Amino acid sequence: MIFYDCSTAPNPRRARMFIAEKGLEIETREVSIAEGAQLSDKFRAVNPRATVPVLVTDDGTVLTENMGIAAYLEARFPEPPLMGRIPDEKGLVLMWNAIAEQQGGLPIAETLRNSHPAFRDRAIPGPSNYAQIPELAQRGKDRVIQFFDLLEARLTESAFIAGDDFTLADISTFVFVDFARVIKTRIPEGNTATIAWFESIQSRPSAKL
Amino acid sequence: MIFYDCSTAPNPRRARMFIAEKGLEIETREVSIAEGAQLSDKFRAVNPRATVPVLVTDDGTVLTENMGIAAYLEARFPEPPLMGRIPDEKGLVLMWNAIAEQQGGLPIAETLRNSHPAFRDRAIPGPSNYAQIPELAQRGKDRVIQFFDLLEARLTESAFIAGDDFTLADISTFVFVDFARVIKTRIPEGNTATIAWFESIQSRPSAKL
Repeated sequence: MIFYDCSTAPNPRRARMFIAEKGLEIETREVSIAEGAQLSDKFRAVNPRATVPVLVTDDGTVLTENMGIAAYLEARFPEPPLMGRIPDEKGLVLMWNAIAEQQGGLPIAETLRNSHPAFRDRAIPGPSNYAQIPELAQRGKDRVIQFFDLLEARLTESAFIAGDDFTLADISTFVFVDFARVIKTRIPEGNTATIAWFESIQSRPSAKL
Repeated sequence: MIFYDCSTAPNPRRARMFIAEKGLEIETREVSIAEGAQLSDKFRAVNPRATVPVLVTDDGTVLTENMGIAAYLEARFPEPPLMGRIPDEKGLVLMWNAIAEQQGGLPIAETLRNSHPAFRDRAIPGPSNYAQIPELAQRGKDRVIQFFDLLEARLTESAFIAGDDFTLADISTFVFVDFARVIKTRIPEGNTATIAWFESIQSRPSAKL
């Protein structure tokens, strides 16, 4: 297998943590988004959609998108389970993962990409250029505040995001919450359940890679 | 089990098709988005995030988000498989499903919700109001055109979206392509592979519900 990573970006980090939590060591190639390497002809021969992360399986299947990579690795290396054991758990993991993507990851990315000069005309990842929309940056910030409220309510009632066990939903949520620093947004001080959960995930070896 | 549906909206339709393709009959309750029923106290007691679809399992687990519902149903009712049989297939199904959501479903929804008067201050689903951003409506239209290019390239090389078999990725993509009519966008006439695929999915009994 070959894993195409980018050490500075949140979505590759989610895949990197998932791989580490499975106890796997996979040959890894760095694709520097800062240098625009994801747009190079060389990388687009691997993934024409010009995004990271990418996992090339032993059979040569090219998997992009965190969901594609996680579904493959979970099926091929079932232990430890990161996507639930029984049907109800499997449902809850992908439900909370989707909520984290839509209500956390997306607004954070929208804020960064629609405000930071480094993303001028790069408001959306991929091969095509899109102009920044300043109103979208502001809306993203508002939505992230609501996401933190949602998280605190959930973590007051549950040890981990999807239930009693650490799963993919914790990986995604942790990476997004940590990445919110780029839009100068941190867990509100009073959100004690979220802070305790964040520190527990941060102490895992997979979070330090 | 209880399934909370809305007959006019694309995301509930995805879950409805998935249930039908599994050959299941589940007690169904209609939640009329046109009447704002998803925002009622009664429904928010079921799903505080005020979105459909929702599936309540026999154990009382409340599953929202298409990914949560599909993961549960696939694990509990494995036949016919709609999310791949072997690891590589499972990866490809969720990869293409994610591409369809991000590059098809999201831009179509952004265009509709940021331009149609019925969605004034309802630019994002859920309990909170957000103002429309007209630039986002235009960007969505541009992105949908690119999505149709991507689809045509894929369906020229593959019988179904994720490979040789009908899967969840076809359900999501079909529902989004069909829903693009609300933003007056149809499959371009020259995209013959996409048109043939669309007609084959449209003829399935699950597409007529």
